[in-house]
Amino acid sequence: MTSAITRNKYLDDNQNRFIEQLMEWLAIPSISTLSEHKDDVRNAADWVRNRLAEIGFPTSRIIATTGHPLVFAEWQVDDRQPALLIYGHYDVQPVDPIEQWNSPPFQPTIRAGNIYCRGASDDKGQIMLVLAALEAWIKVDGALPVNIKILLEGEEEAGGASIAAYVQENPEHLRADAVLICDTHMVRADQPSLVTGLRGVLYTEIAVTGAKTDLHSGSYGGVAPNPIHALCVLISRLKGEDGVIHIPELASAIPAAGAAEKLFWQEDPLHIEKALCTEMGVTELAGEKDYPPLERIGLRPTLEVHGIRGGFTAEGAKTVIPASAVAKISLRLPAGLEPNEVFGWLDKAVQRHMPAGHIVQVTNLHAGKGFYIPPGAPALLAAADALESIYGKTPVFMREGGSIPIASLFNEVLNVPVVLMGFGLPDDTIHAPNEKFSLEQFRKGMKTVADFLGRLTCGQEHAG
Amino acid sequence: MTSAITRNKYLDDNQNRFIEQLMEWLAIPSISTLSEHKDDVRNAADWVRNRLAEIGFPTSRIIATTGHPLVFAEWQVDDRQPALLIYGHYDVQPVDPIEQWNSPPFQPTIRAGNIYCRGASDDKGQIMLVLAALEAWIKVDGALPVNIKILLEGEEEAGGASIAAYVQENPEHLRADAVLICDTHMVRADQPSLVTGLRGVLYTEIAVTGAKTDLHSGSYGGVAPNPIHALCVLISRLKGEDGVIHIPELASAIPAAGAAEKLFWQEDPLHIEKALCTEMGVTELAGEKDYPPLERIGLRPTLEVHGIRGGFTAEGAKTVIPASAVAKISLRLPAGLEPNEVFGWLDKAVQRHMPAGHIVQVTNLHAGKGFYIPPGAPALLAAADALESIYGKTPVFMREGGSIPIASLFNEVLNVPVVLMGFGLPDDTIHAPNEKFSLEQFRKGMKTVADFLGRLTCGQEHAG
Repeated sequence: MTSAITRNKYLDDNQNRFIEQLMEWLAIPSISTLSEHKDDVRNAADWVRNRLAEIGFPTSRIIATTGHPLVFAEWQVDDRQPALLIYGHYDVQPVDPIEQWNSPPFQPTIRAGNIYCRGASDDKGQIMLVLAALEAWIKVDGALPVNIKILLEGEEEAGGASIAAYVQENPEHLRADAVLICDTHMVRADQPSLVTGLRGVLYTEIAVTGAKTDLHSGSYGGVAPNPIHALCVLISRLKGEDGVIHIPELASAIPAAGAAEKLFWQEDPLHIEKALCTEMGVTELAGEKDYPPLERIGLRPTLEVHGIRGGFTAEGAKTVIPASAVAKISLRLPAGLEPNEVFGWLDKAVQRHMPAGHIVQVTNLHAGKGFYIPPGAPALLAAADALESIYGKTPVFMREGGSIPIASLFNEVLNVPVVLMGFGLPDDTIHAPNEKFSLEQFRKGMKTVADFLGRLTCGQEHAG
Repeated sequence: MTSAITRNKYLDDNQNRFIEQLMEWLAIPSISTLSEHKDDVRNAADWVRNRLAEIGFPTSRIIATTGHPLVFAEWQVDDRQPALLIYGHYDVQPVDPIEQWNSPPFQPTIRAGNIYCRGASDDKGQIMLVLAALEAWIKVDGALPVNIKILLEGEEEAGGASIAAYVQENPEHLRADAVLICDTHMVRADQPSLVTGLRGVLYTEIAVTGAKTDLHSGSYGGVAPNPIHALCVLISRLKGEDGVIHIPELASAIPAAGAAEKLFWQEDPLHIEKALCTEMGVTELAGEKDYPPLERIGLRPTLEVHGIRGGFTAEGAKTVIPASAVAKISLRLPAGLEPNEVFGWLDKAVQRHMPAGHIVQVTNLHAGKGFYIPPGAPALLAAADALESIYGKTPVFMREGGSIPIASLFNEVLNVPVVLMGFGLPDDTIHAPNEKFSLEQFRKGMKTVADFLGRLTCGQEHAG
């Protein structure tokens, strides 16, 4: 039996234990954006550090930051071998609207081959399959095939300021030959894919004020400023029904795509358009009709309202004209654009489009750059080979619409290829109620990562 | 000493007791729109019924309804005298945003000659001054000068369905020669005014849905429907920044005003425009610039958003595209328009203006007709004389922008003049934090109502 087969058997034999361990970790509600969950975030960090120590990492520690802690582990097995830096995040999104969950968001529940829990797919489940792959190498081969550094953060859903500072201040400490991030999803369960691009993000809050106090709509309706109405007018001017964003500097800054990629988007051989309609439960897609859906998700900028709040929204009726209203609005931006520069353009557009008689303030809550890796990078090809060997199918290269600001930061600061090999599926409903992770993807993911690690060794092919 | 002087002395001597009684009543949080306050609403009804019995009304009772109860009292003093029906409401508005109150909303607090409490001006304080005036007649003269019926409701802030049904079903029981409503405000503390018109109201909720579930803006931004954005586009299409409402049937249905009223609006001798700016803390008025402010408040229809809610609005950032969003929107309508007919026009406009790819539903939460009384009605002139005698200044006749649906119902069903003589002031911030009522207005109001009652007697002038 080759060691690859033994490793896969080890992963099969121990999969229930890996799932139980994942459930234990998932039950910790490590919501990084809510201050009342600060201790939970810390507990989730301690949990994974302990797990790394148990697996056998000689070095594993908590790194304090001004926000939530980082978890770092390292195993330098052989100076002649390359080093891989593995990144993940142990924090999770908030859970509201909580009433839409079919099982409590922090009570991991297995139904029909999926594990349901906030963080199951994004990103604890994906970190756990990497840990399983590492454990298999250590138990079966007695050592890791390459040198491994692991850096996990607890602020990915909250802007990631602490890890950004840490990476920028410690490039030598983190030096590696490639970076692996398992925090994305494949296009379909039967179609492996690798992410070659991610959009950056600029997340803002727009606050509008009108009169000095709330007013009665009977006495003042017709002469009073209405901040909710003004905010609606502003938002409709920032982006039209046709999906076109009215920020002139942005329109002229979109980078061009290659011919092959354009063709892939136009032909849509994986029928992504149909899949998206089914996933969303709609009959046609929204957005810029002039661009194919994959280009709209992968390369085009978007402007989305995530939340809006103003006036009276409880049961019944209240005839108030509120003194203020607020919206949370983000832009997704293709690689190459600097989000903080875009913030200036947005702010200018907001001031220009704002109806008269109101005061508007735009706040930059967080920002992260986009990322793009050309599909010829060797580490990316090793990942493609690993996927093909486990899934039995050639993977496609995709640009994802989401943002992993840390990917572009690693790429920029460490100057090495970043492999985005995720095992989520499009219907995992991450960031929404009933987030889940496929157990089949968990099992295949473990084996793919184990295979990938073997392909990174230099010199002769690993004994196997 | 004439009995009028004695009555005024009685009101002065007992004013502190009247204020203490008002504070006791105000402390009952009778919010009619919130089901958890049902018992409080009932307690506020019992309180005022007891008060009416104490004053000496031979008949006083609670009338159960399918909603909150009505309070009825009657004193038939002399069949040769006319009967006056007095209306008021003992329910109050909700109190949010509660953090903006300088003293707890249901802890009546006197500061700088005002009493602060939810309901102080709208409408408990104004009912209390009427009760004081009635008491003064009973204690000083031994009897009321005319026959009095009192009908108080507990659903004015919640649509008033129960009293509407009661009035329509019991016109004989309520028959009177005039109706008095003290639930409006004067233009200024030094300028008495009488309301000759009120706008009707149509209060709706507009709910928009997009995809079948909340979505991640990274994975779906660019192709997903966004109900918040669609709702903003819809709202901006229903009414522009210029205040113009885009409901074609409505534009052609606005009644014309008389030449004298138009001149009064255009000349604005009371400098209402400046006063409105000061009250609201703004430098210029919003709305339809082609019409003078008094016409915009008194006759023009308005469309106001009272509340909007959708997606993630808590602390921090969540990159969700929500599956739904909702807004509360009302129209104020001039007398002569039928709100339920306008609802059909609004619904049609909403369906027409709604961005594609979304489902929208408009719900009619409540509706009430507008009201107009020509300034020559005798009961209105009696009220004008009473105001002039206490304030020493000729009152002006004004159209109010607010809605008292019951006023038009009394006018329609009982077919008698309805006198809207209110003692609130424009800065009472009713329906908003820190609602207050001026104690000076409370004192003058008691005397004005006492004087008014004397002027209603038929035959020879009251002995005095």
